Amino acid sequence: MKLLRYGPVGAEKPGMLDSEGRIRDLGDFIPDINGKTLSPDKLAELSHIKPEALSIVHGTHRLGPCVARPLNFVCIGLNYADHAAETGAKIPKEPIIFLKSLGAYCGPNDDVIIPKNSVKTDWEVELAIVIGTKARYVEEADAMAHVAGYCVVNDVSEREFQSERGGTWDKGKGCDTFGPTGPWMVTKNEIPDPQNLKMWLDVDGERMQDGSTKTMIFGVAQLVSYVSHFITLHPGDIISTGTPPGVGLGKKPTPIFLKAGQTMKLGVEGLGEQTQKVIAA
Amino acid sequence: MKLLRYGPVGAEKPGMLDSEGRIRDLGDFIPDINGKTLSPDKLAELSHIKPEALSIVHGTHRLGPCVARPLNFVCIGLNYADHAAETGAKIPKEPIIFLKSLGAYCGPNDDVIIPKNSVKTDWEVELAIVIGTKARYVEEADAMAHVAGYCVVNDVSEREFQSERGGTWDKGKGCDTFGPTGPWMVTKNEIPDPQNLKMWLDVDGERMQDGSTKTMIFGVAQLVSYVSHFITLHPGDIISTGTPPGVGLGKKPTPIFLKAGQTMKLGVEGLGEQTQKVIAA
Repeated sequence: MKLLRYGPVGAEKPGMLDSEGRIRDLGDFIPDINGKTLSPDKLAELSHIKPEALSIVHGTHRLGPCVARPLNFVCIGLNYADHAAETGAKIPKEPIIFLKSLGAYCGPNDDVIIPKNSVKTDWEVELAIVIGTKARYVEEADAMAHVAGYCVVNDVSEREFQSERGGTWDKGKGCDTFGPTGPWMVTKNEIPDPQNLKMWLDVDGERMQDGSTKTMIFGVAQLVSYVSHFITLHPGDIISTGTPPGVGLGKKPTPIFLKAGQTMKLGVEGLGEQTQKVIAA
Repeated sequence: MKLLRYGPVGAEKPGMLDSEGRIRDLGDFIPDINGKTLSPDKLAELSHIKPEALSIVHGTHRLGPCVARPLNFVCIGLNYADHAAETGAKIPKEPIIFLKSLGAYCGPNDDVIIPKNSVKTDWEVELAIVIGTKARYVEEADAMAHVAGYCVVNDVSEREFQSERGGTWDKGKGCDTFGPTGPWMVTKNEIPDPQNLKMWLDVDGERMQDGSTKTMIFGVAQLVSYVSHFITLHPGDIISTGTPPGVGLGKKPTPIFLKAGQTMKLGVEGLGEQTQKVIAA
């Protein structure tokens, strides 16, 4: 199943994608795609619905983030060995966790705003995990039972705010629109191997990131288990699992950063694509 | 005004504290103490209510966090020069920002849980700012207009998770129950000078922290302005402004950390007190 939310900011409605890429109206079955919708029981119930039996949603609609506001928008840092290398960082011994402000959480095709005084706004295509059931002190062997599905996240980052202004990375990760999420959540049954998905990101048609979840250091099950020992994960929570090489900061001979007027296009195999116009604050 | 929320977790009701410390029922006027309640207009409207005109809430009630779940639970690190010194850290040149998981957000007298595998759970009494109106790129001179009031936060921290396990501080700051908030929000008109408030924290009756907001490096107006340039602040958001000296990590000759069975008692002048029992996970 591909579950999504369409409509204006704050007034999104639940939908399901059919096999021809059209949105079908799920509003008669659930009020929203949120923590309550993502339990194994509820997802099993929804899986009996044939998209073709639902009304087509006609017209063009904005997509919201594919899950309603979570409690935690967790991100994992430097989780690809080759990305750690390009940024000059050491390979982490255990996962690096940080939180993205929920103010950054936005639709997959919403404009990305370069913050005031920013000179180093950068991209990061990522595979994100959507949590289906509460996870607290979960062992790795049991972790997948807590996963509802996956989606794409662009972990937009301001490198100067993140690393040159003192303190934690959070300063450069939580600006408005720094977390496009979607276009849809794909339930885990459709992604048998989350550790073998191609992923890419283009800026104005130029391929910047071209990687695969194969080279992740800490895999999906390990991350769910690990995070759950520090931050309890709730249904609807997002864990964005880190980015492969090709970010602007790592470009040789000189880093490249985003400029207003550019367009990012990014995707993860099987999870759909995002397109964002870059604008000034 | 002193605004609070009473009742079981997730079912808190709005109340006002009267001059004798009794809870009065605000439920006929507002559904909850949340972002919508904290606008200058709404607060002005509520200020015309005399607590004595409201029904007394009889019996003993748990207090919830004094504001309903915010979008951002922002914290400031090392914001007291003498605290920075005791932890061996340099005085920051600009504010250190980090985010606390909203899963940590809890009532002022709820039990504080020592996480599994923790050996360094520590306390931090803090003055917290409650945001009343959206703040984005706000200048320092305009910042106070965005403040609705103040409350006490215990920024409970696991020092090993925070600093010895790789990555950002977030790992040691967002465990369940690591953010007791309240007992009530005091509107800013009652706190004419937030930079001159005594604050203290006792563990089992022994005074551990004994400070004043006088020694804060970056003051309230400066922090609201600064944070708003990185993370947009929304009504109901919390900024916890850092802790004075006396944390367990800084105790000489050996650091002291919390043990199950202990009791923390803490307060900030004019903002009331919190009491937490420490329990094991």
